Amino acid sequence: MHKAAIGVFDSGIGGLTVAAEIARQLPDEDIIYLGDTARLPYGTRSPETIIRYAERAAGLLLKYPIKALVVACNTASAYSLEPLRAATELPVLGVIRPGARAAVTGTRGGRIGIAGTEGTIRSGAYQQAIHALSPVADLVARPWPLLVPMAEEGWHDHPVARLTLETYLADFVEAKVDSIVLGCTHYPVFKSLIADVLEEHFGVTDIALVDSAEAVTEDLRTLLTEQNLAAPERAGRRSFFCTDARERFERVGRHFFAGDLSSATVVDL
Amino acid sequence: MHKAAIGVFDSGIGGLTVAAEIARQLPDEDIIYLGDTARLPYGTRSPETIIRYAERAAGLLLKYPIKALVVACNTASAYSLEPLRAATELPVLGVIRPGARAAVTGTRGGRIGIAGTEGTIRSGAYQQAIHALSPVADLVARPWPLLVPMAEEGWHDHPVARLTLETYLADFVEAKVDSIVLGCTHYPVFKSLIADVLEEHFGVTDIALVDSAEAVTEDLRTLLTEQNLAAPERAGRRSFFCTDARERFERVGRHFFAGDLSSATVVDL
Repeated sequence: MHKAAIGVFDSGIGGLTVAAEIARQLPDEDIIYLGDTARLPYGTRSPETIIRYAERAAGLLLKYPIKALVVACNTASAYSLEPLRAATELPVLGVIRPGARAAVTGTRGGRIGIAGTEGTIRSGAYQQAIHALSPVADLVARPWPLLVPMAEEGWHDHPVARLTLETYLADFVEAKVDSIVLGCTHYPVFKSLIADVLEEHFGVTDIALVDSAEAVTEDLRTLLTEQNLAAPERAGRRSFFCTDARERFERVGRHFFAGDLSSATVVDL
Repeated sequence: MHKAAIGVFDSGIGGLTVAAEIARQLPDEDIIYLGDTARLPYGTRSPETIIRYAERAAGLLLKYPIKALVVACNTASAYSLEPLRAATELPVLGVIRPGARAAVTGTRGGRIGIAGTEGTIRSGAYQQAIHALSPVADLVARPWPLLVPMAEEGWHDHPVARLTLETYLADFVEAKVDSIVLGCTHYPVFKSLIADVLEEHFGVTDIALVDSAEAVTEDLRTLLTEQNLAAPERAGRRSFFCTDARERFERVGRHFFAGDLSSATVVDL
């Protein structure tokens, strides 16, 4: 069982930042990644639709020898963890609770900003997860929808992304948050630009950026160690599946996962 | 038959600019609009998937008394017109050929810019349609993917949209095009901003903007008149369907269709 892979799925390409973080922190582990590119984005779907899509995506990964399932999609993590846990005995990790815990652990004054897609913000999932850990936390939640297509354009340091972040970050600076949860898997690619804009445009250097990809990977490492499931020392293999438009998956995916995506296989769910 | 409605479908919300133009130019006509919001965006899908989605969308509209079918989606117009025409005897109008003809009619020097989603540009459909009418036209085609989410944010005149257009328009100005086809149904909402950026940032006032929504509506008017199918004088009714996320359809759709969308009904295709 300890030689089995980590199954990771996302609505598309953004979850590759989570796969990349797992590959970085846990290089021995095999990773099987599924991007449900035929149905992206989940962020604008209804909860019922999101659950149906997540069940199908998980169903594919569960056909392979895996030892843990990582839902590397904030929208799917917001809605589908309970149904997925009912469908398998394997550990199922979402990105929201780890991100929430990292935010609560890291906050100094309890004023936390949350940024995500429309669907994630509207779901209230981060808000609930943070309040479950710290009921007195002051939360400011805002959708940042434009960062997803900008990440996919590769505009990680483009003047347009900078100006968009000047617009998006203003509410958080005004609300004097001390940390911001990057509640969308696409956002980590903008981490250094966000820090730049906070410092150069707003003169702020003390807002911590919480990256859910890092947080879920730390949880995964703990889980594998505690359950004696960590892979032996080896070069972990990576396999990629998508549900449509393989050429785009590979081309755009390179902005998120530094490794080779050329092995991607198209599957029908 | 002349009292039947115009059926209009799009992958989502953008096609409402076409419905709005039909309602403006042909106020007597009933319009039945379907936005396939559960499957948007079509622009990043494979051709096979796009055709399958378009057939299902058209199938729903064909259950209602309609006299013409308007494919108000550039991506679907690029790939699905032939299969749809095989499936119905009603006239099927796409947005690409009317847009191409308007571009060819309007160009002075034969240097035409084409802007659209990744899928539309990659399909080569505008390029082919224009070259079929004017084989010597010089074409410059570029994807403008960020305008779609900006339109849906309501950022029609936002500094971020302005800066994005300064980036996007540079290639067209450099190539000295004399007209630009707005080859995506979301783009007409940026028409005045595009004209502003061309004049203020580039000092250019003689590039014509070709709006496919206007062009297809003119074709539709001709068709209805020639076939004696135009509606009697009355206040045309508008019905709206979407396949998911009705609240968002109504809220965001108001940026594109000035009328009341509150009657929208969710359907499963």
